[in-house]
Amino acid sequence: MIELYTAATPNGHKISIALEEMELEYRVHALDLMANDQKQPAFLAINPNGRIPAIIDTDNDNFTVFESGAILLYLAEKTSEFLPLEPKKRSRVIQWLMFQMGGVGPMMGQANVFYRYFPEKIPAAIERYQHEGRRLFEVMDTQLAHSAYLAGDEYTIADIATWPWVRIYEWSGIDIEGLPHLQRWINEIAERPACKKGILIPPPSDLSDGEKAEEIRKMVTR
Amino acid sequence: MIELYTAATPNGHKISIALEEMELEYRVHALDLMANDQKQPAFLAINPNGRIPAIIDTDNDNFTVFESGAILLYLAEKTSEFLPLEPKKRSRVIQWLMFQMGGVGPMMGQANVFYRYFPEKIPAAIERYQHEGRRLFEVMDTQLAHSAYLAGDEYTIADIATWPWVRIYEWSGIDIEGLPHLQRWINEIAERPACKKGILIPPPSDLSDGEKAEEIRKMVTR
Repeated sequence: MIELYTAATPNGHKISIALEEMELEYRVHALDLMANDQKQPAFLAINPNGRIPAIIDTDNDNFTVFESGAILLYLAEKTSEFLPLEPKKRSRVIQWLMFQMGGVGPMMGQANVFYRYFPEKIPAAIERYQHEGRRLFEVMDTQLAHSAYLAGDEYTIADIATWPWVRIYEWSGIDIEGLPHLQRWINEIAERPACKKGILIPPPSDLSDGEKAEEIRKMVTR
Repeated sequence: MIELYTAATPNGHKISIALEEMELEYRVHALDLMANDQKQPAFLAINPNGRIPAIIDTDNDNFTVFESGAILLYLAEKTSEFLPLEPKKRSRVIQWLMFQMGGVGPMMGQANVFYRYFPEKIPAAIERYQHEGRRLFEVMDTQLAHSAYLAGDEYTIADIATWPWVRIYEWSGIDIEGLPHLQRWINEIAERPACKKGILIPPPSDLSDGEKAEEIRKMVTR
C-alpha cells in the first residue's frame, strides 16, 4: 500500500495520476496547506522540506520518498511502467523529467505567485516568469512536432510530471496560441482516464478561484 | 570521451566536478553565454532548451544528454560511482538531487537575478528568494546534523549537484550564520581536489564581479 500525502496542486497531481496509471493501491492523506499541515513534525519526518507530495511504501519497510520527481522514478522502477528499461530511452525520459523539475515547475510556479498571489502587482516580475513559461512551452512544442510524447513515442513519467503544470496555462497567464503540437499533447493526455481521475485527488476545495487565490495570498505573505 | 558543453556557472560546475571525481576523459567546449552561443542551431541540436551544461558521449554512439541532473545520473550509472546500487540508498540520493534541481537551484538562481542582475531593484522579489534560499539552507543544516552528506554517509551526486550552488551563498546575498552543519559540509567538500579543479572549468573570465554582473544584466534584459 502507498500512503500518499498530497494536496490539490500540480505537484500533488503528478503522483495521484501516476498511482492511477500504475493501478497501485493507495490511500490519500490530504494536507491542508493553508493550515500549515506540511510544517508539522509528523510530516517533516517524512519530508524534511515540508512540501507535498510525499509517500510511504508500506510494502517496502515503510520507506519514505519526497520530491515529486523522485517519487515518479521510485514508482516507475517499482512497477516497471512508464520508464523504458533500454538505457538511452530511459535517459531521455530522465532528461525531460529534469526539464520539468528544474524548468517548467519552478518557472510556472513563480508566474502563479506573481500573477495571482503576490500582495503587490510587480509587472516586471509577472512578465519575467510568463515569458520564461512561454519559452519553455515553445521548446516543448518543437519537441512534440516530431515525437508523440516528450521523450519519444511512449507516454512516460516525463509526461506525467509535466502535464499537470502545463494544463493550467491559463491560471499562469501564459498562452498556447501558435503551439499546435503542445495543444495536441495537452488534449490527448487530458482524455486518459487516470488523468481525469488523478486531478480530482484530493477533491478540489469548494472555494471559488478568487477565494482560493485570497487564501494562498495569505499563505505566501505569512 | 565526453564532450562537455559548459560555462562558468553552478550548473556547469556540477558536471566538471563530476567528470573530475569520476576521472573520465573529457574535452571542454566553453560557450559564451553573453554571445548567445547556447541559442545557436548546433547547440540546440544537443539541448533543445538552449541551456548549459550538455554532453555528448562519443563512446556511446554520440549519445547526447542535457539537464545537469540527468547528466549526473547518466555519468553515475556509466561509472557506478557516487550513486549507491542498493535501491533505498539510491532513492535517497535521487530525492536530494531533486531537492537541488527543483529547489536550491531555481530559488538561488532567482535570488541572483533579482539581487544582482535585474535592471530594477525590487525589494519584495529580492527578499522572497533570499528568504526561500535561507529556508532551504536550514533544511539542509538539519539534515547534515545527523548525516555526513545530504543523502547519508556517502558523498554522492546529490552533494555534487548542490555544493556548486550553496558555496556561492554570498553572491546570492543569503547568509549561513547559525548553520554549523551546512558550514562544515561546504568547507569539507571545498577541500576535495576534484572540486577545486572543477570550479575552474572553464576558466573564469577576466572580468571583475561588477563587470560580469553588468554583462549578465544585459543578458537578462535582452
